[in-house]
Amino acid sequence: MSEKSQNIYRGAEGAIKQTQGKVRALGPLDVRIKITHSSLCATDLLYLPAGIALGHEGVGLIEEVGSAVQNLKIGDRVGGGFHRGSCGHCRYCLKGEDIFCSDRVIFGESDSDNGTFSDYYIGRETYVHKIPESIASEHAAPLQCAGATVYGALVDVVKPAQRVGIIGIGGLGHLAIQFASKMGAEVVVFSRTDDKEKEARGFGADEFYLLSNPGAMKDPVDVLVLTGSRYPDWNAFLKPNVLARNGKVVPLLAPHGPMELPAGKLLTNGYDIESHLVASRGVHNDMLKFAAHHRITPAIEKFDLSEEGIGKAVEKMKSGSIRYRGVLVAK
Amino acid sequence: MSEKSQNIYRGAEGAIKQTQGKVRALGPLDVRIKITHSSLCATDLLYLPAGIALGHEGVGLIEEVGSAVQNLKIGDRVGGGFHRGSCGHCRYCLKGEDIFCSDRVIFGESDSDNGTFSDYYIGRETYVHKIPESIASEHAAPLQCAGATVYGALVDVVKPAQRVGIIGIGGLGHLAIQFASKMGAEVVVFSRTDDKEKEARGFGADEFYLLSNPGAMKDPVDVLVLTGSRYPDWNAFLKPNVLARNGKVVPLLAPHGPMELPAGKLLTNGYDIESHLVASRGVHNDMLKFAAHHRITPAIEKFDLSEEGIGKAVEKMKSGSIRYRGVLVAK
Repeated sequence: MSEKSQNIYRGAEGAIKQTQGKVRALGPLDVRIKITHSSLCATDLLYLPAGIALGHEGVGLIEEVGSAVQNLKIGDRVGGGFHRGSCGHCRYCLKGEDIFCSDRVIFGESDSDNGTFSDYYIGRETYVHKIPESIASEHAAPLQCAGATVYGALVDVVKPAQRVGIIGIGGLGHLAIQFASKMGAEVVVFSRTDDKEKEARGFGADEFYLLSNPGAMKDPVDVLVLTGSRYPDWNAFLKPNVLARNGKVVPLLAPHGPMELPAGKLLTNGYDIESHLVASRGVHNDMLKFAAHHRITPAIEKFDLSEEGIGKAVEKMKSGSIRYRGVLVAK
Repeated sequence: MSEKSQNIYRGAEGAIKQTQGKVRALGPLDVRIKITHSSLCATDLLYLPAGIALGHEGVGLIEEVGSAVQNLKIGDRVGGGFHRGSCGHCRYCLKGEDIFCSDRVIFGESDSDNGTFSDYYIGRETYVHKIPESIASEHAAPLQCAGATVYGALVDVVKPAQRVGIIGIGGLGHLAIQFASKMGAEVVVFSRTDDKEKEARGFGADEFYLLSNPGAMKDPVDVLVLTGSRYPDWNAFLKPNVLARNGKVVPLLAPHGPMELPAGKLLTNGYDIESHLVASRGVHNDMLKFAAHHRITPAIEKFDLSEEGIGKAVEKMKSGSIRYRGVLVAK
């Protein structure tokens, strides 16, 4: 296999272009996945100028396994693409926080010729995840990063009986609503316009408010999850009638410049900022199990996994008109 | 008593001035404390322009008790001044988080004619705290806000076996070193110059580095406590060889403008910002017990509780030359 050539999509000249590359030979713990579906994340665009192989929300079928692989076999349907490796013996790995391993391999930081916008993705055993039978591959793809990100944050932060505010109804937001609702929280959604109110309620939102008027809530939220592409008006949200004292802000949006916080409001109200990066592997598996059990289903639009298809998906994502995750489908 | 007059020190014309005021009549749960010692906190200067009665780290002897007071009596030596009341029946109060009560009374937000830079401070039962016998009043004063603040944050955030970084050796920092050390943490201190290294080690620091060179550490810290009067160079501190991934930043400095954080570094390293406001009452009592058991002793400089004495203390605090908390002593 090592001499086989394949299509790899990378950033070049401000767009995502089809290039040719070799299919890497497998290490003993690797599996080769024929990609069938891979969704587009804002983080791909962040790494577009780096020229790396893009795509980190992939799903496909295993076509080859390394010599030491024990728990996966040819034909298995698996997903992955963001978290690709960790050392296995450091304090993070030993405590199940492997996404923070000092020697981690994650999308964007290294492994730059391997991506899920390709014919093949090479994943390491336990870093690719079996997809529960009830989840279609096109729906499993967005769960590999967007789903893991929102589940990982919510499961860590939200307690029963709490009210969870979610800002933004997009790739992450529409999944956060579903996960939070199924976790039993009261789900409060904030959006720029009321265009998406009906859909938000369909995903599980109990309450819906305009971003410009969070004070319309009768009771404050305990957790405020930030998705979308910009920070909220901190002065409007960081007050006790909107975010309860001792509340937590969970920024899940792709970083875009510094986060300029009103320090006095944080201090007097005891607000915490809780960062979460996708999810460690054990949490990722829990997420898939939870999503299957509760039939959590990403809302997707399908495009061809081709230069033209990716271009259309990027265009729609940039314009904010995509509902809600673009999934690239291999021919 | 209600017609008795007293000295009350307030901000006026950019300085703290002696004014005359009435001694307030006691409510059924109040006690009247003859102040013997009260220390000066940067937060007093923050509220100087507001013209309110200043002082919130007071210690003294009870001279009068309200009709319903059960657990305090005339002659008791008590301290308090920051947290003055909460409703007793809201979710925060019921969970022991009374400092976040929606109807809380705290220094600076209300109760503006009552302070510990006065002859008398009126405190409510359970919001003033009995001072353990082994702690001198002059040392007990700085514990009422500075001590409660650092203990409250550390006890909530730090786990055994962790390394705690403390930026700044001042009123809060020199206490944070002592508390963290006695909690069993490895204590790492960062300071602008090496002037205070010997003292820092005396307080319990295991390691000492210049603020300009945190990368000199062999191992990163897990928690970074910010004291002093300015934020650190975020780019120098928010990286995995200085603050371990999944680490926590605890800003305890009085706010001075927005906190401009590098969002990308927070996200990829999973850093949290944990806010803490002084301490709820149960934690405050624990702090006093812990301080007594471990002989935690603020380093103080004494001044007269007079316009002149306060002026000198303010001058020394502003110039950064105070070692490390100014305590005003009543004649």
